Amino acid sequence: MNTEKRHKLRSRINRIRGQVEGLGRMVDEDKYCVDILTQIAAARSALDTLGVELLADHLEGCVVGHGSGSEHHCAEPMTREQLIAEVKTTLSRFLK
Amino acid sequence: MNTEKRHKLRSRINRIRGQVEGLGRMVDEDKYCVDILTQIAAARSALDTLGVELLADHLEGCVVGHGSGSEHHCAEPMTREQLIAEVKTTLSRFLK
Amino acid sequence: MNTEKRHKLRSRINRIRGQVEGLGRMVDEDKYCVDILTQIAAARSALDTLGVELLADHLEGCVVGHGSGSEHHCAEPMTREQLIAEVKTTLSRFLK
Amino acid sequence: MNTEKRHKLRSRINRIRGQVEGLGRMVDEDKYCVDILTQIAAARSALDTLGVELLADHLEGCVVGHGSGSEHHCAEPMTREQLIAEVKTTLSRFLK
Repeated sequence: MNTEKRHKLRSRINRIRGQVEGLGRMVDEDKYCVDILTQIAAARSALDTLGVELLADHLEGCVVGHGSGSEHHCAEPMTREQLIAEVKTTLSRFLK
Repeated sequence: MNTEKRHKLRSRINRIRGQVEGLGRMVDEDKYCVDILTQIAAARSALDTLGVELLADHLEGCVVGHGSGSEHHCAEPMTREQLIAEVKTTLSRFLK
Repeated sequence: MNTEKRHKLRSRINRIRGQVEGLGRMVDEDKYCVDILTQIAAARSALDTLGVELLADHLEGCVVGHGSGSEHHCAEPMTREQLIAEVKTTLSRFLK
Repeated sequence: MNTEKRHKLRSRINRIRGQVEGLGRMVDEDKYCVDILTQIAAARSALDTLGVELLADHLEGCVVGHGSGSEHHCAEPMTREQLIAEVKTTLSRFLK
């Protein structure tokens, strides 16, 4: 992952941390359940967007770029079949 | 929400905040994308569990308990039809 | 469930069956994967909307209406605590 | 998509159609809402598994295989950047 991409992901994660801290404050202040639920749904959507972003980076950098020498940080050596099987497993954790 | 329930929700939220901070560290340390994605899916599941917990509290305290005098913190006065319509809208934010 | 509600649910289900049959045709005709995926996402959303609709009916007819004599078809006799625990389990099947 | 893969997808879709038809019968027979909801969640999971399967085929056949001559049915000519952007859009329809 290059510096710009990492910076972008880091900003997303910081925003999500802020949303989760906001949830804590809402519970402390005994806010209306439905308003808290709306914020939970928003944090969940933000995590999904982060996941889609990161998966696309992975496809670009490790799966498609496989064998091109650009995949230096892509974990242990894998064949493309193994990489695609791994993407399937990963997606199944989101869609189940 | 009584003190015990609030405490339980607060613990869940603290754990989720810890998970999100862990995501930040993984990005900083340039961990393998697929491992980060697995952690994102875990944080997302934890948010879902929190949502289900809170919705059940809401059903118990505000929707079912409606009119029993127990619903003192349940936002503005609503009819049960309005409360159920509100639950539908809330669920649609998670399931869409 | 009254006749009007059942009719409405039946129409939704018929539409979803049509969407799933459409998916079969797309595979037979070797359509572009991404177009099939878009249709899968649409059928999934339609199932979610059906689920939210049905859950709201259940809350109205069985959980809130509990003890009012309107819940004649609401399975075996349960306490409200049991009904709410059952709703939690059911929601967990969608949000996990 | 080769014949074996298409046959496998077709079987999955037929099973899902059967599940949706089962939902229709459950509504006709006025089954308990919670049992219908459990079946809706099962059909939804089956659609998700179908989606993950198809997306992996797409990654293998069109995105990774891009430029290798194997992608004859992969819609109009696209660059890899466009293909990955398309995968992001597609995933966002599931995770939102």
